Amino acid sequence: EVMPRSAIELRCQCINTHSRFIHPKFIQNVNLTPSGPHCKNVEVIATLRDGREVCLEPTAPWVKLIIKAILDKANTKSETVS
Amino acid sequence: EVMPRSAIELRCQCINTHSRFIHPKFIQNVNLTPSGPHCKNVEVIATLRDGREVCLEPTAPWVKLIIKAILDKANTKSETVS
Repeated sequence: EVMPRSAIELRCQCINTHSRFIHPKFIQNVNLTPSGPHCKNVEVIATLRDGREVCLEPTAPWVKLIIKAILDKANTKSETVS
Repeated sequence: EVMPRSAIELRCQCINTHSRFIHPKFIQNVNLTPSGPHCKNVEVIATLRDGREVCLEPTAPWVKLIIKAILDKANTKSETVS
């Protein structure tokens, strides 16, 4: 459990998306918002290490690979522990 | 581009993880934080529609499926548009 940190947004948050590759070492976290009544687009927002927030293109292959890489790293860790 | 909404966290945010299935319709957004100097764990935090934040188990198959489903929906949308 964590403390709530952000209000629920009632509209799209991304005006445009960044489709050029960003190296994972610059990425602090990635936020995925499904489409819904508030916004028809799936939104993928990366917070960079310098605090900037950048909207990524959810259909870009490198974006999917970065998300997969983050999750795969969790798998590797738990295998090491057990 | 979006406005910055959250301060950069300097420690782990999840004390424990929720591994039981949560239906995607209750999920407002999902935040993925890679492991790093601030925290050795990969952290996956879902914000629910009621505003609660829940730490999900990054190695749970249903968690990966939900993330994949969010991204796949973006693919479907852009194919429809083009």
